[in-house]
Amino acid sequence: MKNSFGQSLTVTLFGESHGEYIGAVLDGIAPGIKIDDEYIKERLSFRRPSGRISTARVEADEYKIVSGVYEGRTTGTPLCLIIPNTNKKSGDYSALRYTPRPSHADYTAEVKYHGFQDPRGGGHFSGRVTCALVAVGAIVASALKAQGIEIGTRVASLHGVRDREFECLKEDIELLNKKSFATLTYKAEEAMRREAECAAARGDSVGGVLETAVIGVPAGFGEPWFDTLEGVLSHILFSVPAIKGVEFGKGFEIADMLGSEANDPFIIRDGEILTETNNSGGINGGISNGMPIIFRCAVKPTPSIFCEQKTVDLNSRESASLKLEGRHDPAIVHRARAVVDAVTALALADMLCQRFGTDYLANCK
Amino acid sequence: MKNSFGQSLTVTLFGESHGEYIGAVLDGIAPGIKIDDEYIKERLSFRRPSGRISTARVEADEYKIVSGVYEGRTTGTPLCLIIPNTNKKSGDYSALRYTPRPSHADYTAEVKYHGFQDPRGGGHFSGRVTCALVAVGAIVASALKAQGIEIGTRVASLHGVRDREFECLKEDIELLNKKSFATLTYKAEEAMRREAECAAARGDSVGGVLETAVIGVPAGFGEPWFDTLEGVLSHILFSVPAIKGVEFGKGFEIADMLGSEANDPFIIRDGEILTETNNSGGINGGISNGMPIIFRCAVKPTPSIFCEQKTVDLNSRESASLKLEGRHDPAIVHRARAVVDAVTALALADMLCQRFGTDYLANCK
Amino acid sequence: MKNSFGQSLTVTLFGESHGEYIGAVLDGIAPGIKIDDEYIKERLSFRRPSGRISTARVEADEYKIVSGVYEGRTTGTPLCLIIPNTNKKSGDYSALRYTPRPSHADYTAEVKYHGFQDPRGGGHFSGRVTCALVAVGAIVASALKAQGIEIGTRVASLHGVRDREFECLKEDIELLNKKSFATLTYKAEEAMRREAECAAARGDSVGGVLETAVIGVPAGFGEPWFDTLEGVLSHILFSVPAIKGVEFGKGFEIADMLGSEANDPFIIRDGEILTETNNSGGINGGISNGMPIIFRCAVKPTPSIFCEQKTVDLNSRESASLKLEGRHDPAIVHRARAVVDAVTALALADMLCQRFGTDYLANCK
Amino acid sequence: MKNSFGQSLTVTLFGESHGEYIGAVLDGIAPGIKIDDEYIKERLSFRRPSGRISTARVEADEYKIVSGVYEGRTTGTPLCLIIPNTNKKSGDYSALRYTPRPSHADYTAEVKYHGFQDPRGGGHFSGRVTCALVAVGAIVASALKAQGIEIGTRVASLHGVRDREFECLKEDIELLNKKSFATLTYKAEEAMRREAECAAARGDSVGGVLETAVIGVPAGFGEPWFDTLEGVLSHILFSVPAIKGVEFGKGFEIADMLGSEANDPFIIRDGEILTETNNSGGINGGISNGMPIIFRCAVKPTPSIFCEQKTVDLNSRESASLKLEGRHDPAIVHRARAVVDAVTALALADMLCQRFGTDYLANCK
Repeated sequence: MKNSFGQSLTVTLFGESHGEYIGAVLDGIAPGIKIDDEYIKERLSFRRPSGRISTARVEADEYKIVSGVYEGRTTGTPLCLIIPNTNKKSGDYSALRYTPRPSHADYTAEVKYHGFQDPRGGGHFSGRVTCALVAVGAIVASALKAQGIEIGTRVASLHGVRDREFECLKEDIELLNKKSFATLTYKAEEAMRREAECAAARGDSVGGVLETAVIGVPAGFGEPWFDTLEGVLSHILFSVPAIKGVEFGKGFEIADMLGSEANDPFIIRDGEILTETNNSGGINGGISNGMPIIFRCAVKPTPSIFCEQKTVDLNSRESASLKLEGRHDPAIVHRARAVVDAVTALALADMLCQRFGTDYLANCK
Repeated sequence: MKNSFGQSLTVTLFGESHGEYIGAVLDGIAPGIKIDDEYIKERLSFRRPSGRISTARVEADEYKIVSGVYEGRTTGTPLCLIIPNTNKKSGDYSALRYTPRPSHADYTAEVKYHGFQDPRGGGHFSGRVTCALVAVGAIVASALKAQGIEIGTRVASLHGVRDREFECLKEDIELLNKKSFATLTYKAEEAMRREAECAAARGDSVGGVLETAVIGVPAGFGEPWFDTLEGVLSHILFSVPAIKGVEFGKGFEIADMLGSEANDPFIIRDGEILTETNNSGGINGGISNGMPIIFRCAVKPTPSIFCEQKTVDLNSRESASLKLEGRHDPAIVHRARAVVDAVTALALADMLCQRFGTDYLANCK
Repeated sequence: MKNSFGQSLTVTLFGESHGEYIGAVLDGIAPGIKIDDEYIKERLSFRRPSGRISTARVEADEYKIVSGVYEGRTTGTPLCLIIPNTNKKSGDYSALRYTPRPSHADYTAEVKYHGFQDPRGGGHFSGRVTCALVAVGAIVASALKAQGIEIGTRVASLHGVRDREFECLKEDIELLNKKSFATLTYKAEEAMRREAECAAARGDSVGGVLETAVIGVPAGFGEPWFDTLEGVLSHILFSVPAIKGVEFGKGFEIADMLGSEANDPFIIRDGEILTETNNSGGINGGISNGMPIIFRCAVKPTPSIFCEQKTVDLNSRESASLKLEGRHDPAIVHRARAVVDAVTALALADMLCQRFGTDYLANCK
Repeated sequence: MKNSFGQSLTVTLFGESHGEYIGAVLDGIAPGIKIDDEYIKERLSFRRPSGRISTARVEADEYKIVSGVYEGRTTGTPLCLIIPNTNKKSGDYSALRYTPRPSHADYTAEVKYHGFQDPRGGGHFSGRVTCALVAVGAIVASALKAQGIEIGTRVASLHGVRDREFECLKEDIELLNKKSFATLTYKAEEAMRREAECAAARGDSVGGVLETAVIGVPAGFGEPWFDTLEGVLSHILFSVPAIKGVEFGKGFEIADMLGSEANDPFIIRDGEILTETNNSGGINGGISNGMPIIFRCAVKPTPSIFCEQKTVDLNSRESASLKLEGRHDPAIVHRARAVVDAVTALALADMLCQRFGTDYLANCK
């Protein structure tokens, strides 16, 4: 298995930026789950470029579910969803195959695929492919929601501009899931947009940090070794293009704490066992403890920038320089958020189905 | 698959802290690899508690390879390695099942296993189990070394005490792999030891950050989606008990950089294509680019501390308190380093064997 | 993983008989493999119903490769192939959901999918879905052929009518791969067609036995336990609808032989190690021995017959009867042959890529 | 994954005929399952050679469970079971590495493992390794029995000598599971023993056919493609050394039947939906239909015979001859039965756990 993820609920991705379709197959999805097209469309809109801080390439993302759904509900058989690529400008990219863009996948693709990769628009490496992830993730997320599990991701910071911290998770998640630019305050959104525009004006780009909270997760799933909850989540999170770090609970900060500060004491509230703090991010020994699952992802600045950059000519094997033109995002952290939500839903649902059986996500019994 | 990892080269872990043996099965290992007992023993000694900042429970770790090796070389069939548990004091733990230790796996194990888990010494969740990982990891690491791939992990910081940064990777890795306490300077080691002892004196514990470098890795392996190099490495790294964060290259720091600062320009040196900086940690688009692979892991302070802690009585479902006694480490970050090296070797070897075939690690052709 | 197969080279199937598309994703395919449309079309034509002994539902099978191919060659990224369903008559099937057809999957689908399955034309269980298997199998088979590995399947018998045995494998395979009805003699084809027509005339159906030979397979791949060559091949062969038995070499006949008759003595011919007989079907201890791989599959008569049959009304839970109408094959054994060839190619290629690396199928190095 | 099987419940095998231990790891087993040592011992005794028609190498099979069991019940963590090899005569085999035994795995192992395999007693290919499968299979089988699922395998024929057919499955299974030589009549047992002794007297060996019935299996599990019930069962069955064919229900016989004869009409009896006949062996469309699962396996005669045999000298690459001495079974079909029962239990339990969750096999909820 390579470009597939999940054991009980498996997603397989395909497609290239300038191919006919990108898409995904979702296998192992329980039967009877209602397809909520409005919700899928909304999630796709959260990923879609818009405004001055996004690429000018805008796609309608008119997905089509070609199998696994009958009369508006999942059948339980593999669900294939395809999305046509319409707004393609292949000419933009033609010169780049032999002068690889720094910190893009051009060079590694050339080595791995011996030059047979599709070079147009980043090919299979394009962020465009995440569109299909967002769409199938939305199907799974709405099934999780029906089980009381809700996911929300905020732009915690963008090039150093920070939003307020999570406070009341339930309300905060609801707020985030209504917003296209997922900050908890409008002030932060504004400041971040300005920051990104400012970088864009200089032909530069910015990164940021995403923070995700998942509530309603039952205690007791995940494995002690290898298929730990952290391990499985990070595995799929690092598929989100540009993510270079994943931390759970207090994450890297916990390395500087004392045990007496870091430990989460157990308490009982309304008959329920909780922990007083949540420095562990809801996971002990690789297994959920019933508290909210909290993690953060570092998103690097988009590598497509408009200043002149050093590179190498792969034909002559000499130094070269390149200056990008075309349509690129000065920031993708706010768009990546929709992808983080999607892969979180996919990974958690897979582990829950492994634990509780393939009907777990369904309303039927 | 749960407590197994790897597709071409697979490791399966078993054992409990106070059971008869802990061990591992390594399946898919190429035939003809020489077993270097001295090297395995050295790696085990790096993981073994020692000195004042470690638990008083010391084990000889007298591993025995019971299959898959014939006349000192791997046969190519599953290699099972077992290590007896000798120094067991089961009495220490008997009271803990119903008053779970904060930030340990006691509570999550109770929920997941319905009370049937082995409660003695953390059972299957015990760091003791990593002993088997270190041993099989050492077998794989020496095979990787024969292919020119070398791994070194340093204690980058311990409760805020920092060592110097990596400078010349090849020499630094060699130095680290000779040291039991893996810092690049003896001054840092001393300061860290003092810091840990100081916490121990107060019955408290400390965490830290590990930084790993891998040199000699060929370009072009890893997958664009899901089985990215970052995803696969982080998946197994989060199995190392106490790790709560993993970051590649500049990691979380990159979130605050501009694209123009973060991008790694390609250069050519002695006919070889390199990048001028290595902010990407040797990975672009999920695939190795031929530069050293660099990552950091956040290790939380050991949750076993000797102050009184709040917990819950699982029987009466009322608040309770607990005060640990017995043998515990005030710091494990320096010991975890041997486990990080081991799992890095296992994950990289697996991906290389998937890419280049099952004989990749062997001297034979 | 459920509706996917393969570890290094993975195929994922999707689609329903009356959905918009059926299709497959082929992941892990080496880059640089030329897409031979003529060959794919020919293989699809071998699966397509034709003549009097096939269903009157004929589809053009106009497949479209929507990803993973660029300028006529595989890129190395997931290849998705879709085939539209055009000739649909959904009305034919509407009554059947609550009176399941004997020996079809109607009842088991109802139980498994709680009634949410697509009931039109057998839904995801339809033999129609094998079309996508045949198409991606053809891509892989032509890559295997470039490595000297050739696959041929003959209709060994149809309702007791037998063809001659394999003689010269290379020539016989070539002959078979030119024929739409894969017998080694035209006489057998004629007799079989008559037999099937005769059954059709009575509203009945017939089964048969397929025999497959694979030549050019290198010695030394397959695993001693679980992923034996026999185990992996049979696993995928039983996916071919209607197959109820798989045997290798002498198969069930060997059970009645003496060891002295069954053993295959080693001989040397032109410097090559061979066996004098091939009762083992080219496999010893689960591993290829360099001789041709030989196996046979039992194909049951198509369950769609036109006599009145006993069934049960799932609503009233009372006895019921049903009489099928519509378009059905009186025999599928000759069409199943193309599917057997395809899955054989897929399974062997996957195991070869596991053994020799992901570039094994490519012309490039 | 290679020498492992199962997705939710996974077994990993290790060990060589003349190594220190053979064993298995069972991962994913539900917590709380009682270990019934008497039952495990009985199953091992059914596999153990005994009497005149078995090898003179008899092992006590004193297994030891070294992890995953606490206070007599499974903990839910990986269960490792080891069995020492005591009765080893390594001298018997020393000459064989370069003159491979016909129809054994000597030659294929030499090619696959480049000469590094353990040549003593067949090494990892030895039937001895199945001992560990039988032991862990027995743990799973007793858990299945507690869910009402019972498995029985009969020696249907041995070198043409046949037993009576299954009649009342429940009683027949109970009878078989009390017998060391699993025929339904004592007359057949006697005739078969005579047949095998007669072959043994001539230095020859015999094969046979095993037939397995499984009752109590719920309808609705298995997958339409790839992970069909037939596919998964056959995959693991072909791991049982010497099995060369697997057929379900009427198997190869169904190829000669008409659809009207082969179809299994649905009927209702005591409110339960059944089929009148069971030509499908309990499986439609790859999914269980609630009827008994029935299959047969062809077991080849043991390749170790005492007549002179042709082989090749791998050093000189010239013709050679070999005459085996030592301890070998003239028949293993009656012993293989215990292995078939074991792998059937393992495969079904895995699929049930995938379908219904990891607690399915446990008494606890």
